[in-house]
Amino acid sequence: MAVQFTAEDYAGRMRRAAAEAVQAGYAGVLVTPGPDLVWLTGYQPTALTERMTMLILREGEPPRLVVPKLEEPDAQAATGAPVLEFVPWTDGIDPYTVTRPLLGPQTAYAVADSAWALHVLGLLRTVSGLRLTPLTDALPMLRAVKDPHELDRLAAAGAGADAAYGQILGVAFAGRKETEVAADLAALLREHGHEQVDFTVVGSGPNGANPHHEAGDRTIATGDTVVLDFGGLRDGYGSDTTRTVHVGPDVDDEVRRVHDLVRTAQQTAFEAVRPGVTCQDIDRAARKVITDGGYGEYFIHRTGHGIGVTTHEPPYMIEGERLPLVPGMCFSIEPGVYLPGRFGVRIEDIVTVTEDGGRRLNNTSHDMAIVA
Amino acid sequence: MAVQFTAEDYAGRMRRAAAEAVQAGYAGVLVTPGPDLVWLTGYQPTALTERMTMLILREGEPPRLVVPKLEEPDAQAATGAPVLEFVPWTDGIDPYTVTRPLLGPQTAYAVADSAWALHVLGLLRTVSGLRLTPLTDALPMLRAVKDPHELDRLAAAGAGADAAYGQILGVAFAGRKETEVAADLAALLREHGHEQVDFTVVGSGPNGANPHHEAGDRTIATGDTVVLDFGGLRDGYGSDTTRTVHVGPDVDDEVRRVHDLVRTAQQTAFEAVRPGVTCQDIDRAARKVITDGGYGEYFIHRTGHGIGVTTHEPPYMIEGERLPLVPGMCFSIEPGVYLPGRFGVRIEDIVTVTEDGGRRLNNTSHDMAIVA
Repeated sequence: MAVQFTAEDYAGRMRRAAAEAVQAGYAGVLVTPGPDLVWLTGYQPTALTERMTMLILREGEPPRLVVPKLEEPDAQAATGAPVLEFVPWTDGIDPYTVTRPLLGPQTAYAVADSAWALHVLGLLRTVSGLRLTPLTDALPMLRAVKDPHELDRLAAAGAGADAAYGQILGVAFAGRKETEVAADLAALLREHGHEQVDFTVVGSGPNGANPHHEAGDRTIATGDTVVLDFGGLRDGYGSDTTRTVHVGPDVDDEVRRVHDLVRTAQQTAFEAVRPGVTCQDIDRAARKVITDGGYGEYFIHRTGHGIGVTTHEPPYMIEGERLPLVPGMCFSIEPGVYLPGRFGVRIEDIVTVTEDGGRRLNNTSHDMAIVA
Repeated sequence: MAVQFTAEDYAGRMRRAAAEAVQAGYAGVLVTPGPDLVWLTGYQPTALTERMTMLILREGEPPRLVVPKLEEPDAQAATGAPVLEFVPWTDGIDPYTVTRPLLGPQTAYAVADSAWALHVLGLLRTVSGLRLTPLTDALPMLRAVKDPHELDRLAAAGAGADAAYGQILGVAFAGRKETEVAADLAALLREHGHEQVDFTVVGSGPNGANPHHEAGDRTIATGDTVVLDFGGLRDGYGSDTTRTVHVGPDVDDEVRRVHDLVRTAQQTAFEAVRPGVTCQDIDRAARKVITDGGYGEYFIHRTGHGIGVTTHEPPYMIEGERLPLVPGMCFSIEPGVYLPGRFGVRIEDIVTVTEDGGRRLNNTSHDMAIVA
């Protein structure tokens, strides 16, 4: 059972967000419902609607939640609610006008990436001089460094995903549709503690060459290479794991060669992880192995992404991202090679940065498993 | 089985959106994944992510979909794809720079309400002179008037919700938690064809006085008034229905009086529905009944909202909304009275505007049902 976050945990996160905003040159942070609001307050409305809810964080001011009157009782029930000042508004009132005086004289704010255009444009129209910057650009590290309880949850999510992988190797692949194996994977993730399944990619044969193929009607056949990429949330924290398996023992030479290459790339990038190394260094480490192996043009995505209360979040392991790694950061390392019309190979673990290197939160073998 | 929409259906919607944008003074429409994109193209990505997908609609130009290269194959599989021109972008490329030349010389665009701040601000930063207006404000009627196949789906969703209501009256209420009855309601909606359940409100006793209370740990008791508000999607179109029931036959006089009043308000607003009447007239019709009955201050929300590919959408039945009703529009009429700490009453049907009046898409009785 995960340790429960307390109102004081949330208060600490909100204080830190406000302080980091000031250090970065912003007056504060504006947060609408979504992963940032969950992380900062524990509050997740029943549904995302057109009625504006917005958390306003400013250093030296109490955190304020502008919230539809109708939804105030639900918000009051959130764990972080005791440290919030509530500013309810009712239908017929303009919520942007309600928000304006709460922003103070400085008007450069960081805003949650997923805040709706409706609200962003409503505020820009109403608050003269307002300048907004997405949180990803303004404070890319805000949620990146995990505290020990968060790390425990991410490790538990990884362990659940590992257990699901162990069991999926025992199901029938040949003769079944991708969607059937995907359903098995989803059920296994739930069996192993996930309350939410975000994706269960089963990319067999040529479908594996489409990195974001989910799962389709294709019937898996003996001789297929199959990419399995699965993840979701366990106790509110994410898993995201990929392994590439083979149906039957007769593995084509090129499949074997590409799998070895991707495996080496994953291992090389993992070994590059330590504090002070930049995000782009991790991408470069993986990419160099694949490029040197002659498959660089077929590695068509970045090497990784952060993970926490969502399965995809900043910072990204991509050329041009110069943020340095810090102990407690958690992200994916997932190089891949995709040969159009033929097959794909990807291997992905979640790793966390330690004081002197990295630690994997996934611990199943990188060998290409043979399935039936 | 619902009639399937075709590529030509989607092409027609996209042409109409582009034409209406020009009529309203915009260069076109920008649409990110969400209900507008589903309605316009049939395309719904597996997940909403930080990687930008954006549909650009301009009169006289082919509809263009800027899409992450990784997700292009999935987008290509959408029903509306044959009429789209694809503009893929790869990791490391700036999608806003890719989008800029596609916008043309005029730079006033309507944008989907739920487009992420990340993308809205990215475009505003990149495209000089760009002016964005949320679709709700720019083209509030875009999805409001339903075609006959859409009406069929909404009617089928309403019929499914009605069937679920009929059966929920037979389950035990007294002695069970709200969450248990809510789970029954969700199962019944699925049993009656809903592929997605959006909400199952069970507000018993004082919880009924919180209009957006979902369902909690409270154990329902004999003598409770219980608000049941439930809906979701069936074949991609929404249901949203509310009835207020009573546990046991001994109904308090004030509960009876308030229920009669809300019922009359609902009926009065329904009878006001006809082409040319404004949205605010519907709100006023319901509100006058409740105000005249002495409970005006306890009717704390607007009277209704549009419904279609989402369960909440414009236009809204609220004071100040002067849009006239048009045949084919579908919306909720849901007056309520909420007495803090005591009980609440709400009655809600979905209605559609006909050539000379209104037609209900929910057809169960408005009598206060007695449950056990």
